[in-house]
Amino acid sequence: MATKFLLPEDGIPTSWYNVAADLPTPPPPPLHPGTLQPAGPDDLAPLFPMGLIMQEMSTEPTIEIPDEVREIYRLWRPTPLLRARRWEKALGTPAKIFYKYEGISPAGSHKPNTAVAQAWYNKEEGVTKLTTETGAGQWGSALALACQLMGMECLVYMVKVSYYQKPYRRSMIRVWGGEVIPSPSDTTECGRAILAKDPDSPGSLGIAISEAVEVAVKRDDTHYSLGSVLNHVTLHQTVIGQEALAQMEMADAYPDFVVGCVGGGSNFAGIAFPFVGENLKKGKKTRCIGVEPAACPSMTKGLYAFDYGDTAKFTPLLKMDTLGHDFVPPGIHAGGLRYHGMAPMVSHLHQLGLVEARSVMQTEVFDAGISFSRSEGIVPAPESNHAIAVVRQLAEDCRQSGEAKTILFNLSGHGHFDMAAYDNYLDGKLEDYAYPEEKIKEAMKNLPKV
Amino acid sequence: MATKFLLPEDGIPTSWYNVAADLPTPPPPPLHPGTLQPAGPDDLAPLFPMGLIMQEMSTEPTIEIPDEVREIYRLWRPTPLLRARRWEKALGTPAKIFYKYEGISPAGSHKPNTAVAQAWYNKEEGVTKLTTETGAGQWGSALALACQLMGMECLVYMVKVSYYQKPYRRSMIRVWGGEVIPSPSDTTECGRAILAKDPDSPGSLGIAISEAVEVAVKRDDTHYSLGSVLNHVTLHQTVIGQEALAQMEMADAYPDFVVGCVGGGSNFAGIAFPFVGENLKKGKKTRCIGVEPAACPSMTKGLYAFDYGDTAKFTPLLKMDTLGHDFVPPGIHAGGLRYHGMAPMVSHLHQLGLVEARSVMQTEVFDAGISFSRSEGIVPAPESNHAIAVVRQLAEDCRQSGEAKTILFNLSGHGHFDMAAYDNYLDGKLEDYAYPEEKIKEAMKNLPKV
Repeated sequence: MATKFLLPEDGIPTSWYNVAADLPTPPPPPLHPGTLQPAGPDDLAPLFPMGLIMQEMSTEPTIEIPDEVREIYRLWRPTPLLRARRWEKALGTPAKIFYKYEGISPAGSHKPNTAVAQAWYNKEEGVTKLTTETGAGQWGSALALACQLMGMECLVYMVKVSYYQKPYRRSMIRVWGGEVIPSPSDTTECGRAILAKDPDSPGSLGIAISEAVEVAVKRDDTHYSLGSVLNHVTLHQTVIGQEALAQMEMADAYPDFVVGCVGGGSNFAGIAFPFVGENLKKGKKTRCIGVEPAACPSMTKGLYAFDYGDTAKFTPLLKMDTLGHDFVPPGIHAGGLRYHGMAPMVSHLHQLGLVEARSVMQTEVFDAGISFSRSEGIVPAPESNHAIAVVRQLAEDCRQSGEAKTILFNLSGHGHFDMAAYDNYLDGKLEDYAYPEEKIKEAMKNLPKV
Repeated sequence: MATKFLLPEDGIPTSWYNVAADLPTPPPPPLHPGTLQPAGPDDLAPLFPMGLIMQEMSTEPTIEIPDEVREIYRLWRPTPLLRARRWEKALGTPAKIFYKYEGISPAGSHKPNTAVAQAWYNKEEGVTKLTTETGAGQWGSALALACQLMGMECLVYMVKVSYYQKPYRRSMIRVWGGEVIPSPSDTTECGRAILAKDPDSPGSLGIAISEAVEVAVKRDDTHYSLGSVLNHVTLHQTVIGQEALAQMEMADAYPDFVVGCVGGGSNFAGIAFPFVGENLKKGKKTRCIGVEPAACPSMTKGLYAFDYGDTAKFTPLLKMDTLGHDFVPPGIHAGGLRYHGMAPMVSHLHQLGLVEARSVMQTEVFDAGISFSRSEGIVPAPESNHAIAVVRQLAEDCRQSGEAKTILFNLSGHGHFDMAAYDNYLDGKLEDYAYPEEKIKEAMKNLPKV
């Protein structure tokens, strides 16, 4: 009875899967924030290389992965697929539970899958430096790793409060040769403007985005890089689901459910889109479920509408499940899931009924993660625990109905840098919080009129 | 050109390899601390189960791994073997460098290989609880994981200063259901005695051992567990080297050098003993090199002599490479390598000329680790960086001589809980320190007269 399903090195996919090609309609294009007209490639060119902009708009079914990107993927890919036999037993469920483990990457999450690809396309077009923002540091560390492996420079604006309170991913950025600056900083105009008003500003992801974008726009050799949300990011993450398809076949099984947590949507897209493709092309009936915090419920409580990607309204407008760009997420212990919007491609599939969403409270999330960890060993990231909580719900449904459903979930990262959150949970200090309906309605008032 | 050599699940060894069987003479037995006569099985029975005591004294060439232990190994074993192609290129060396990555285990190091085995043999004999000591928490977390997976209780005495300053492995112990108490504590007689004298005692590994041993001796349902040094521990770790033998064959290569860091000696023994066995049985000529900090040089500067395992002189006397039981290691950033002695089996092989030793300074160690990380991605544990520093020396020798030697090293763990040490290095705050000869001579004065 095998537990682990490992692909050989040449099991790394040779192309990314573009779900847009198999949809009845592609998602609406982004709108220019000034004109509110569809944004063309040139509008995005100050920030991104043309290779990625073309991917953003592509309806080709597959896009070949460059050799050098695959060569770097080999440092940790293919990632393992495991059957959670011990956890199934502990839950007393007839369900078969499989998980794809992305925490094995050097940065500890799925993020390097796109970071490496983005660095490569930038390097190809002569860009020598990438800027980005980071909160707790997951994305900043992944991009620093990618830039180091590609021989590029990396500049990360890290939200100031995280820079001081969560120093360990900051340290990884430094180990990988990246420069990390607490934001707001005096290195940009927008940073200086904020410091002039409030010298003690703790910073925010919105401010850090503005600083990173400002640097990229001002310098010809520098571009900006985003770790989730955009189509090219969800595209790159499909290596996860493609590998999982092959590994499920090794396991002689096929999932009734595919589950992933959703913040910006990229890890869920990565595991789910290839299975959505099988549904569309081969009439399979896998239910794909994105799981979000009840404290930040863009898919389950938000509106499908055009909205800005950032608080400052600098970015193009994206049609997406959104809580409004003024939405301020509460300080839950899953930093990666605190975003007001959702990847346009995930939102579009949601709208078409091709993926589903559920929300969960954070104490259930940690309880489920600890239950998993005590059977399977791995300590998951708090983000991943959202997926685990819904997998446990599905397994309990099976226990009650006696059905032996097959469940696959994406264990998107490990929790080694989130142990303080586990302590808070074990000390009874975590509080549940569902974002109140009336406050959501309030935030919706400022959605742009398009 | 393959980079990664993965064994299938049934590539987990079915037995441990006992190098004692292939030696001209087995190492001398431990001596009873009271009588100074060879200690028999009964002397060790209050602390350890008979299954492990028999392994401690065995000269059988192989000892079968129990099915349930192998089943748990499958959660992370076989661990991957990788060829460090990118690092070779960065170093400009013709050497072929391979590494075995043990950081993939849930606890992040090789430690669970023996923790799981020790828990099983204790459970078999009706023991329901294990106690141990831990410094930074590597061993405590590994034993908590093992006990959780075996359905046993685990009580960890953690050096008080680490309990408060390095809380994250403490959190892992809790996630895995273990109890962790800052030592010295009021839960034991010896703890209370120390607190009476010094209420603010920061604790030490020696004190924590005493507390853990006291609890184990006083309770019939409780045993004590040690994470390194003893023969049964080095035995259990031979799964590493046995897998590596098979994986090097997959890579169509055989090592001229096998390198591992040494603190108590278990990870080095784990990778090296199977290759020492090939040297002895098949006339191979692999040089096996243990690498220790210049600040704690038991193999390169110590004496091969009978000595106590602990400062308080509670333990049996072991014949080993030792700096003397009074040796107080300086606060270097590799907590796992700060032990005055060396595994008796490793020391015996050293004496016989079957393994070698080198020492390195800690700034070279971190510089080498960062060099590795910037090519291969993984951020290694500071302990593992000691091995990496010597691998880089050997690779440089090859660069100069033009010889394409094959080097294999054990990457014993990741550095996710040691990022503060990397920060210290990058900030220029690490100082080099070689333990002075005269202070070593001083510590040697108190070696027991046997």
